[in-house]
Amino acid sequence: MWHSKDVYYLSGSTGILAEDLGKSLLCQFPEISFNTEKIPFIHTAEDAKKAIEHILSQSSGRYPLVFSTVMNKELIPILDVCEVEYFNVCDDYLVRLESVLESKPIRISGTARHLDDTSMGDRVNAIQYCISHDDGSLLKDYDEAGIILLGVSRSGKTPISVYLATQMGIKAANYPLVAEDLNSYRLPSAIVRNKAKAIGLSTDPKTLQFAREKRYKNSTYAQLKTCKEELNQANQIFLQYNIPIIVSDGRSIEETATQVAQLMNLKRLPRL
Amino acid sequence: MWHSKDVYYLSGSTGILAEDLGKSLLCQFPEISFNTEKIPFIHTAEDAKKAIEHILSQSSGRYPLVFSTVMNKELIPILDVCEVEYFNVCDDYLVRLESVLESKPIRISGTARHLDDTSMGDRVNAIQYCISHDDGSLLKDYDEAGIILLGVSRSGKTPISVYLATQMGIKAANYPLVAEDLNSYRLPSAIVRNKAKAIGLSTDPKTLQFAREKRYKNSTYAQLKTCKEELNQANQIFLQYNIPIIVSDGRSIEETATQVAQLMNLKRLPRL
Repeated sequence: MWHSKDVYYLSGSTGILAEDLGKSLLCQFPEISFNTEKIPFIHTAEDAKKAIEHILSQSSGRYPLVFSTVMNKELIPILDVCEVEYFNVCDDYLVRLESVLESKPIRISGTARHLDDTSMGDRVNAIQYCISHDDGSLLKDYDEAGIILLGVSRSGKTPISVYLATQMGIKAANYPLVAEDLNSYRLPSAIVRNKAKAIGLSTDPKTLQFAREKRYKNSTYAQLKTCKEELNQANQIFLQYNIPIIVSDGRSIEETATQVAQLMNLKRLPRL
Repeated sequence: MWHSKDVYYLSGSTGILAEDLGKSLLCQFPEISFNTEKIPFIHTAEDAKKAIEHILSQSSGRYPLVFSTVMNKELIPILDVCEVEYFNVCDDYLVRLESVLESKPIRISGTARHLDDTSMGDRVNAIQYCISHDDGSLLKDYDEAGIILLGVSRSGKTPISVYLATQMGIKAANYPLVAEDLNSYRLPSAIVRNKAKAIGLSTDPKTLQFAREKRYKNSTYAQLKTCKEELNQANQIFLQYNIPIIVSDGRSIEETATQVAQLMNLKRLPRL
């Protein structure tokens, strides 16, 4: 068995896909440690030669894993040499798709991110919107939101809404439930009239306590009792206004964000 | 040739990887239009049966493409039926890695995002930091930054720094070059002492004009002449302080962010 392995991510563009795929696969072998390096923007034969020389100079004789999304047919033979274990990710699939779709691929890296100028503009707008509505201070602008995340302080609203904006181009706003809302069991009218876009974030009291302790150590705010009470009040408010609840604890940002997006799609369907 | 094709992304976790891979491949066939749908969180045989029933009920006889990152060996035969063109992304590679690495994969979806609690905490902190330092108003906190992006108003600092924080867990701060800086060709001392972490963002005048017009139509601020002048001044400041420049126009958020991260790595190496 190997205990350590060198890994390279090669790409004609950013290398984000090669790295994501590699990470998903390699973490399935927790007993092995991996030394990884990303080499993005491989555009020319010169770039490809440099990349493989660098790889061999560092990992010669150690048979490194190479996850490559390089699509340029002329560059692949330069990179796929017998001293490396080459995972020819995009090319293999393009060959298969070419036959299934009976169409020739253009084989230009980075196309997915370039093609869609509108969606890039949407993402930039969504990020700006999300940042300027992170603290719930601009109540009048909630009408513009795509999604409104409600939750008590430190329940994880910010990372989720930033992710929704950055990756999915969704104008995600936050509304922090403060003492006034919690004690009166009422939401402001700007939220109530946008209820269809609201999702309640909840978590377990210990996770919340941990997050709050980091901010204000030994405060009433961070006490387990306070956390339990506020989460209970928040959940009651969500139920009362018929706002769906997502429990985020133990989940990654990506998982919770995907659940939020799924739930919004369901809510948009008729009769739900 | 096909003119339209149904596509499904299946996953035991979020489906982000399956979708990214699919997007990268499908945009290589610009003549074909694709109808896509994501089915995430396929955990049980029940989930898998539901998914394939849904796919066949919608796309029966149309031989849809299915990009699947499902890793559970018992679920794959349920999904990989002869009525679909199944791309068995993770499983195929896991089988190959099992033999190369001489180790058994654990085959648990979502592991990449769960394993690393520290990096999740880092990302959450980086996002909070990035949001509270988006406008350059807290000069004293720049010592804490991992990267400081400098640029004139609307040169694209915010989306890049949000991406760096969300995806790479980098504490990315912005510093907007205002008239005072531009006219004096000087940077504040908080930036100068953190110069090693600074990167200048530039763009072409027309792109900048377009972005500014959207914010304040027909203003002096958005005139092409103003844009040219400010970009020139900014570039001179960057050169004068020996701050590397990245030109973002025509690039996606991901590409510019990857370039910024690459440049920071280079800067961290000795003798550069």
